Amino acid sequence: MAVQSLPPVVGELLPVDGVELGWAEAAIRKPDRKDLLLVRIAPGAQVAAVFTRNRYAAAPVRVAREHLEQAAAQGRDIRLLVVNTGCANAGTGAAGLAAAHETCAAAAALAGCTADQVLPFSTGVIMEPLPMARLLAGLPPAAQRLAADGWRDAAEAIMTTDTVPKGCSRELRIDGQRVVVTGIAKGSGMIHPDMATMLAYVATDAPLARPLLRAMVGRLADRSFHCISVDGDTSTNDAFVCIATGRAALAPIRSPDDPRLAALEEGMAEVAVHLAQAIVRDGEGASKFIEIVVSGGRSPAEARAVGQAIARSPLVKTAFFASDPNLGRILAAIGNAGIADLDCDRVRLFLDDVAVARDGGRDPLYREEDGRRVMAGSRIQVRVELGRGGAQSTLWTCDLTHQYVSINADYRS
Amino acid sequence: MAVQSLPPVVGELLPVDGVELGWAEAAIRKPDRKDLLLVRIAPGAQVAAVFTRNRYAAAPVRVAREHLEQAAAQGRDIRLLVVNTGCANAGTGAAGLAAAHETCAAAAALAGCTADQVLPFSTGVIMEPLPMARLLAGLPPAAQRLAADGWRDAAEAIMTTDTVPKGCSRELRIDGQRVVVTGIAKGSGMIHPDMATMLAYVATDAPLARPLLRAMVGRLADRSFHCISVDGDTSTNDAFVCIATGRAALAPIRSPDDPRLAALEEGMAEVAVHLAQAIVRDGEGASKFIEIVVSGGRSPAEARAVGQAIARSPLVKTAFFASDPNLGRILAAIGNAGIADLDCDRVRLFLDDVAVARDGGRDPLYREEDGRRVMAGSRIQVRVELGRGGAQSTLWTCDLTHQYVSINADYRS
Repeated sequence: MAVQSLPPVVGELLPVDGVELGWAEAAIRKPDRKDLLLVRIAPGAQVAAVFTRNRYAAAPVRVAREHLEQAAAQGRDIRLLVVNTGCANAGTGAAGLAAAHETCAAAAALAGCTADQVLPFSTGVIMEPLPMARLLAGLPPAAQRLAADGWRDAAEAIMTTDTVPKGCSRELRIDGQRVVVTGIAKGSGMIHPDMATMLAYVATDAPLARPLLRAMVGRLADRSFHCISVDGDTSTNDAFVCIATGRAALAPIRSPDDPRLAALEEGMAEVAVHLAQAIVRDGEGASKFIEIVVSGGRSPAEARAVGQAIARSPLVKTAFFASDPNLGRILAAIGNAGIADLDCDRVRLFLDDVAVARDGGRDPLYREEDGRRVMAGSRIQVRVELGRGGAQSTLWTCDLTHQYVSINADYRS
Repeated sequence: MAVQSLPPVVGELLPVDGVELGWAEAAIRKPDRKDLLLVRIAPGAQVAAVFTRNRYAAAPVRVAREHLEQAAAQGRDIRLLVVNTGCANAGTGAAGLAAAHETCAAAAALAGCTADQVLPFSTGVIMEPLPMARLLAGLPPAAQRLAADGWRDAAEAIMTTDTVPKGCSRELRIDGQRVVVTGIAKGSGMIHPDMATMLAYVATDAPLARPLLRAMVGRLADRSFHCISVDGDTSTNDAFVCIATGRAALAPIRSPDDPRLAALEEGMAEVAVHLAQAIVRDGEGASKFIEIVVSGGRSPAEARAVGQAIARSPLVKTAFFASDPNLGRILAAIGNAGIADLDCDRVRLFLDDVAVARDGGRDPLYREEDGRRVMAGSRIQVRVELGRGGAQSTLWTCDLTHQYVSINADYRS
């Protein structure tokens, strides 16, 4: 029942035929750091994305949505992604929209495409203007560096408060052919990950029809990045982009019933889940990785609500930080999850393999030293059995530490 | 527009005719501290309360609810409150219920009433058994100390992580007669105040009919303690109790149209609001008091949702701690409040008297040094104008500091 161990940083990131990446140090907020990324996508690739639902969606998010819709409606390819850190270009009104459009136009001129074939992304401080002169000056050097083996540098170029770059590759065999999936992500605000920008880009060389990719990106997000969001909300800039270049030696996948689709989706999901968990493990100031599995719900939504009530409780999260089995705090969180007819006498709580609570109170077999042993670990599974049905939900979170406060108090300085 | 200043600790607490208080050091969790309180109420008084909605409601909460319902149904008086700190008697199953009943029976024997005329209250660690031998041994000394001027000691006896006792008195003139209102409260877990136990007791000598008092206690909670709760949820043990002894030289108030009711209610509300704000000001590790006023909502619920999204954002709260006008975080919180059709171009944000945001971005007149000046203060008002209607909501909260983490990580040790 222990939480599965995963490598904490990127391994080898395999090139994806049809994708090139190039970075620059544009000094958008601070000098001498990679803060600008170009991703060039070969013609004929499919691109799909899910974005934040925040009403203060950043200007680049609004422009990227618009360009994706236009591309789909007019059968045009998306050819370029532009990502900057240091400034979110959110809460910037009409001037921010103009800046995002100008970014696309300048990048398009370099890449030989039209501005509406470019998707812009920004992450950083909200409500400050994008420093356009520095950003535009950074585009040519980034374009010069475009290369198929640029994934590792790209993972570094999108970091903000992240302490490690995050990336993952999988090699699949589909119909005997090699298919590659490679992804990178950034994000590390962990009490409300939805409040800190999360960006993730996953590319494959599999040949996937656009409608299938568009449907898949939502399912992938539900299995990965939405499981680290504590209440389904998202920040002003969150985005998850999937690219399918179609360069692998495989006949096109066009039908949702194609059995190769499931094999590809599993590979894509492995990469997405790895990246999502890497964001949690690199949570701001996090010292522990916590998996919350809620089963026995009447609906997945109900199970998820209980998981989120635990994941967002600062009292629970500080108890994990202190390795203190003050586990009544978890019961209080379960009782707060909004299930009006929850029968607490049927709820069971486990910490890894230790039975903690049942019949409305502590399990008679529970011993404090067992709880203390589990809490001392750096990976902990919280398991709640609601006893109401068969629905289940899994979430990943981390503890709340002194360092979280330091990082977020000092973020701008 | 600055937030109103209030005295940080208790002033003189006036006796309320018909109420006596007595404490003991029962060593329920730690020795040499007041941790047990008895409140004796004269015959003929009315008592009403609101309790937590947490599904893991503590055993004393369940017993107190039951005794209040029985008393109302059978026309019996509530004669005694028993409050212990150090152990919440929550998540304790059938044994916890038995312990709460046994507590009532033992206290009743001392006070010469029946067990169902006693209301029990507990606060402290969840999922640990109430140490009955020590609690029962503490009842006789507490009973011996019962005195009308015991309010200040009582405020100390109910403290847990509180750093100051919280109490407040008001002297009213109604129909030329003196009426007293005195209250005490405890509570200081401030990211989710609903997750830390909040207890409050407000007594008056006014003669108020039971149905009027029962209706008033809900309205008072909505104006005071519910405004410091970040999401309307409550902990396993939260309780707010109002007592009207009827000893003042005033004809009974029996009709909801009696003009004296409004005068009394204002006095009671002043005490309740003072106690609620005192809890925020004593928030665990808090260094700043933040008032959030949201106006221009289509409904009070909508305005409240926006206020709560701001109040519960750890990113906003750490920015206040750092005195860093990283005010885009407030916009992101507003965008996350769940108003699907919010037009951000109509939203205006102010910090005290400084205009911060409008037209979807930063106010053209905003200067960083103005934001910095306001953020440097210890009392800050955040004002949001939604531009959608006439509904308003006010909430009080505090910043998120290193000390919050320390206090909650170390709470049990």
